[in-house]
Amino acid sequence: MGIVVQKYGGTSLGSLEKIKYVANRVVDRYRLGDKVVVVVSAMAGQTDSLIDLAKDITKSPDPREMDVLVSTGEQVSVALLAMAIKELGVPARSFLAHQIGLKTDSSHTKARILDIDVRLINKALDAGEIAVVAGFQGVTEDKDITTLGRGGSDTSAVALTSVLGADICEIYTDVDGVYTADPSICSNARRLDKISYDEMLEMASLGAKVLQIRSVEFAKKYNVPVLVKSTFKEGTGTLVTKEDVTMESAVVSGVTYDKNEAKITLLGVPDRPGVAATIFTPLAEENINVDMIIQNISADGKYADLSFTVTMSDYERAMAIVKKKGELLGASDILGDIKIAKISIIGAGMRSHAGIAAKMFGALSKEGINIQMISTSEIKVSCVIDEKYIELGTRVLHDVFNLGKQGDAIV
Amino acid sequence: MGIVVQKYGGTSLGSLEKIKYVANRVVDRYRLGDKVVVVVSAMAGQTDSLIDLAKDITKSPDPREMDVLVSTGEQVSVALLAMAIKELGVPARSFLAHQIGLKTDSSHTKARILDIDVRLINKALDAGEIAVVAGFQGVTEDKDITTLGRGGSDTSAVALTSVLGADICEIYTDVDGVYTADPSICSNARRLDKISYDEMLEMASLGAKVLQIRSVEFAKKYNVPVLVKSTFKEGTGTLVTKEDVTMESAVVSGVTYDKNEAKITLLGVPDRPGVAATIFTPLAEENINVDMIIQNISADGKYADLSFTVTMSDYERAMAIVKKKGELLGASDILGDIKIAKISIIGAGMRSHAGIAAKMFGALSKEGINIQMISTSEIKVSCVIDEKYIELGTRVLHDVFNLGKQGDAIV
Repeated sequence: MGIVVQKYGGTSLGSLEKIKYVANRVVDRYRLGDKVVVVVSAMAGQTDSLIDLAKDITKSPDPREMDVLVSTGEQVSVALLAMAIKELGVPARSFLAHQIGLKTDSSHTKARILDIDVRLINKALDAGEIAVVAGFQGVTEDKDITTLGRGGSDTSAVALTSVLGADICEIYTDVDGVYTADPSICSNARRLDKISYDEMLEMASLGAKVLQIRSVEFAKKYNVPVLVKSTFKEGTGTLVTKEDVTMESAVVSGVTYDKNEAKITLLGVPDRPGVAATIFTPLAEENINVDMIIQNISADGKYADLSFTVTMSDYERAMAIVKKKGELLGASDILGDIKIAKISIIGAGMRSHAGIAAKMFGALSKEGINIQMISTSEIKVSCVIDEKYIELGTRVLHDVFNLGKQGDAIV
Repeated sequence: MGIVVQKYGGTSLGSLEKIKYVANRVVDRYRLGDKVVVVVSAMAGQTDSLIDLAKDITKSPDPREMDVLVSTGEQVSVALLAMAIKELGVPARSFLAHQIGLKTDSSHTKARILDIDVRLINKALDAGEIAVVAGFQGVTEDKDITTLGRGGSDTSAVALTSVLGADICEIYTDVDGVYTADPSICSNARRLDKISYDEMLEMASLGAKVLQIRSVEFAKKYNVPVLVKSTFKEGTGTLVTKEDVTMESAVVSGVTYDKNEAKITLLGVPDRPGVAATIFTPLAEENINVDMIIQNISADGKYADLSFTVTMSDYERAMAIVKKKGELLGASDILGDIKIAKISIIGAGMRSHAGIAAKMFGALSKEGINIQMISTSEIKVSCVIDEKYIELGTRVLHDVFNLGKQGDAIV
């Protein structure tokens, strides 16, 4: 008799009817004979409503109190789900972070898990109960309440799977798995049966919002198998796991895009040491993440053009800093472009295959799509293109790497 | 520099504007130089909304999970109030029951406080912070969340006052003190400057819903001075304290009434041992509280008439039980009356004054008000009368004991 950890997100618990539905799914699994631990998020919209309350009190809510406030969302969910399960005749017991000693550091609103004491959960499981655990929340050594950041319940679930020695972490969400591309753009997008942690990390960081990145990092570190499934549709889902032999043949696993970036360019900056530091140090100090960076030097070697991308929400702040610093540096012009997007191909098989990037560039250029910036990792190639080409570009790459068809991609 | 405990109820925290107002009041007090501990209830309506959620899931929600659910109301309040206080430039820190080890027994939804570990609160106070404590909630030895029952935040506040050795417990509410009678009935009702614990207990149990009864019992037991004041109106309030010399002269302190009772009468019950037990044992087993009981025996000593009162919400259930048992006993008839009310006079001075009850009966009869049942305690006389006379009766008694005028009552 194994232990199964199931995690249900906010959209799966968006109403009392949905909570009752989830209770039924959980009980079905319990009746198959497994020990079941359920990790839940706040009901959809609840966390945002709580944040709105705080914002009406003060423009800059105290992070400690913010965590006290928003963690109530998960507390409501565990109580209601435990009640709904008991209503079906199966014993259940809710657990909050302080009850299971889910210890974190004290970085409020983005805390990291340090330890979990699973004794109370194991006691409940041994007594035949379903354990319903509040995701997203933790406590510090000083008993302060913390939260793990957006999507933190995924990380709670993966961490619990690891420390409980459970067989699998099932993440139930509103999509039925990870796809080769956004199905709303590529009608022939294919659900992947398996994907490696590294590929999933690249996808998550590129905007495919199926799993919180940290949960995947955690799963990779502790080798926790994560199965992404739909709450409301039957299906086998996508298993996120370590790379194995059967995966290696897939050179490209998927195409993703991210419209949530903006580009900033400094033209004609005198080329001398320290230019990059002058720009990027103040951005880092303002907690602005810079994604891609390219720098070209003019023919005479005296001037450089510098371009980089930031997320849309940081764009205004970044632009203000760059304008100030750019003047000091003597830049001839500073340009901003919010009409860009990043398109990427991802695949663990790239490590052992050459020519993938070239094939990507060729396919885009054949359609007249200009590539503005390029960045690569071991298992990913990303290009910044004009935002208006993002659907076309996705379909082109999806086709050129044969992702829509069953079977492996042929290069 | 003393410690002050202030408690704000749900109506005082019914909106974000009110929370900001309360934050200002708390900060005003802090700036006078006292150490301030604030105990808060859930925002008005919040607890009922949470209970409604549970009732939509199941008709009989699990009490343990109910406490997990409803305790979120106070958690939201402490976070928002602490934020609002910090917004005013004063350091504040929220505390939940599990953080301050507010231990209770495990009687979910009506737990009793066993212990409070005030170290964290004292640490905050010593650091110059305002401590904002969630009322109503507790934790068991096993870390389960409990709640203290309706109005339980009053008890939290009184208990904290006691264990902190604070100077006073100020209860802020929507009335500005305890009155000699309901001001909506007696236009000349007078706010009492002081009232004894025993008198307050009688008033609370008779429907003057200013304080939770258990909080007054607790205050009496540990001799905690409790000051009842209005949140939104200036005023000196009413001090609930132990009896002292200056109080003793007031023979009658107030007139109260309770419309929330119903009367059940069994006629012609054969008078033999065990009749009362046959009726009242099954009522007790169903958790129905019986208030007043009278029994008359017929002239020949063979038959008895038995009347008693229950709260309105228990009336239907009680009647069903009594009908069944009454038939077994051979009662000639069973009557129910929901159009009754209880009117009472309360005063610690009754202990040393005779003739108070007679004066009450005389005043009511002079107005043609028939007395159906009578019960007395050391400091209280209660009569059940026809509900339609309740306003008239209250004014008559208020006048006959001179409660409306300044100064002591003259008998």
